[in-house]
Amino acid sequence: MDDYKRGLEQFRQMVGDEHIDGLIERFKSVCPDFEKEVVSVVGGRIWTRGGIDLKTRSLCSICVLAALGRNSALKLNFQMALNNGATVEEIFEALFQVAAYAGFPAAWDALIKLEEVLDEVEEDE
Amino acid sequence: MDDYKRGLEQFRQMVGDEHIDGLIERFKSVCPDFEKEVVSVVGGRIWTRGGIDLKTRSLCSICVLAALGRNSALKLNFQMALNNGATVEEIFEALFQVAAYAGFPAAWDALIKLEEVLDEVEEDE
Amino acid sequence: MDDYKRGLEQFRQMVGDEHIDGLIERFKSVCPDFEKEVVSVVGGRIWTRGGIDLKTRSLCSICVLAALGRNSALKLNFQMALNNGATVEEIFEALFQVAAYAGFPAAWDALIKLEEVLDEVEEDE
Amino acid sequence: MDDYKRGLEQFRQMVGDEHIDGLIERFKSVCPDFEKEVVSVVGGRIWTRGGIDLKTRSLCSICVLAALGRNSALKLNFQMALNNGATVEEIFEALFQVAAYAGFPAAWDALIKLEEVLDEVEEDE
Amino acid sequence: MDDYKRGLEQFRQMVGDEHIDGLIERFKSVCPDFEKEVVSVVGGRIWTRGGIDLKTRSLCSICVLAALGRNSALKLNFQMALNNGATVEEIFEALFQVAAYAGFPAAWDALIKLEEVLDEVEEDE
Amino acid sequence: MDDYKRGLEQFRQMVGDEHIDGLIERFKSVCPDFEKEVVSVVGGRIWTRGGIDLKTRSLCSICVLAALGRNSALKLNFQMALNNGATVEEIFEALFQVAAYAGFPAAWDALIKLEEVLDEVEEDE
Repeated sequence: MDDYKRGLEQFRQMVGDEHIDGLIERFKSVCPDFEKEVVSVVGGRIWTRGGIDLKTRSLCSICVLAALGRNSALKLNFQMALNNGATVEEIFEALFQVAAYAGFPAAWDALIKLEEVLDEVEEDE
Repeated sequence: MDDYKRGLEQFRQMVGDEHIDGLIERFKSVCPDFEKEVVSVVGGRIWTRGGIDLKTRSLCSICVLAALGRNSALKLNFQMALNNGATVEEIFEALFQVAAYAGFPAAWDALIKLEEVLDEVEEDE
Repeated sequence: MDDYKRGLEQFRQMVGDEHIDGLIERFKSVCPDFEKEVVSVVGGRIWTRGGIDLKTRSLCSICVLAALGRNSALKLNFQMALNNGATVEEIFEALFQVAAYAGFPAAWDALIKLEEVLDEVEEDE
Repeated sequence: MDDYKRGLEQFRQMVGDEHIDGLIERFKSVCPDFEKEVVSVVGGRIWTRGGIDLKTRSLCSICVLAALGRNSALKLNFQMALNNGATVEEIFEALFQVAAYAGFPAAWDALIKLEEVLDEVEEDE
Repeated sequence: MDDYKRGLEQFRQMVGDEHIDGLIERFKSVCPDFEKEVVSVVGGRIWTRGGIDLKTRSLCSICVLAALGRNSALKLNFQMALNNGATVEEIFEALFQVAAYAGFPAAWDALIKLEEVLDEVEEDE
Repeated sequence: MDDYKRGLEQFRQMVGDEHIDGLIERFKSVCPDFEKEVVSVVGGRIWTRGGIDLKTRSLCSICVLAALGRNSALKLNFQMALNNGATVEEIFEALFQVAAYAGFPAAWDALIKLEEVLDEVEEDE
């Protein structure tokens, strides 16, 4: 199986069947090649590596994204973290490490994004 | 037990009895109040929270610090991650999330710091 | 007086009696523990330290937050700077140091946030 | 010709006669001195330097701004890049270097801003 | 030809036959998998894309890396930029955009790294 | 008086007669034009503005530079802050705002740089 297919399966598993088409569409919307690379590289080559479980990988990703303030990917990774088995409480704890090591304001901005994601999850149900 | 004592015990557990005095000395060297705050807040109020295990907390911290390029704390957190039960391979996986989400150069700079830590650990033994 | 109480009083002084409940509510909204820590640590342990006056502390904070693009805390710190006695002109001067040292775009993004705050202050009156 | 006049002419060339007044107004809106400095320094002293063509200078600027997540200046620089002769495809390629070196999420956030600019350009026509 | 081979050829072209083995060794030194990914993704999937010439791609990369202060990759990219046909003067111009958009200190730190690279190039000759 | 002359006088006042030539030399060493711009813009157009005193301007600058980890400019600004009348204790307080708002590791890295500066000042005397 090539990188792209592996990445697509990986993202499907992490965002759910009902959301994968929308996600792919968003990646494609401006630049189709970007979708090809992000699915192949981030999904197919990195997220599939193993060695740490997906929940830990999600918490690590959230920490990177909150530290750098990358909003689009942060929201997506909150959604994927919940699907990868992280509880909201575990996400909070990851964000406390962000508070200590990247400053409280980075954690605050991230919590606001998390709130948006939790509201959307609730509406979905 | 107050924040400072709790933080000191927490750092002692994570850096080892033989390294705690040196660490405290480094925190104090320019600004004694900084030592008091970093031990009380980062050690006593954050690292002691529970909810995720110390190994996961270490991997999260490494991701924040590698993303932001904070060198002193990154080296310390590599050392603490090993003491908190993370294998070198697990640290690698955390850094692959850094590569995907903060760029390969952030992971490269962090790997160079990790190499310094691993060399020092080896000399210690 | 413990850290939390000291922090709450400090924030009350800096945001005003009429805004403190709203602020506490915003800190609490997703993660109650975050409110506890941000009030205790940022308010109670840091802002209360003395050694420089609150206006200078505000200008310093604005510079950190504008450099890193932390939006929620930046807006709050513009409000607190005005209450701590900084004039709009003094805030401008702090942002010129941001322009020189973090680039003009960081100052521009911050000025847009400052404009939002000044508009809200005007509406309040 | 002084820095300010040179800068104003430079920005006029890069944003177009129909947009220059709006841009100047936005720079001035909160802090008139900021407009004076950004036009004189960024426009008059930097963009006019020569040595590389304006299209290359635009792609370089986009890379800095996407890496740092500076939203207001990023949008403006997408507009100026198109006027400086960059194709959308060339902007994509610059953003692939952002993806490799600052992480895919920085490129994603930038692509969303680029989409907004392309939509506005289309409406203009 | 697979991503890795394509990436290896790309890096060989950009660093020169006499430096490629040393570079691969540095990528491998701590984490062999990192070498595999950086060569395949950054070299094989990104640098080979076309659409803009290699010199422009180098200047874009330098801008990202100087803005974020990524030292190891910045030095490598100065070397590759020279091999990709950029003159020192063109690199200076890219760094003036860094000065305007990420602040003068980011350009200053980068110039110090560039000086190290130019000294090494001179010694080589 | 033009921007360059004004900037040179401003830097001379802030680094001292005995250090100004060395500083100018360092700015010039790789790229002479960089010296011209940094002296004219940062020194001549920004530091000379007035509206806040030089000590406050120094503390603001330190906060920006510590948040972003710009090492060369950070060291220079610690030296200038002392000459502008800031005490070491006042610099500490600025760095506590960095700790709260950019994370403790940013303040730690800055304190290590400050220690280098204080050691050099002592040797000078």
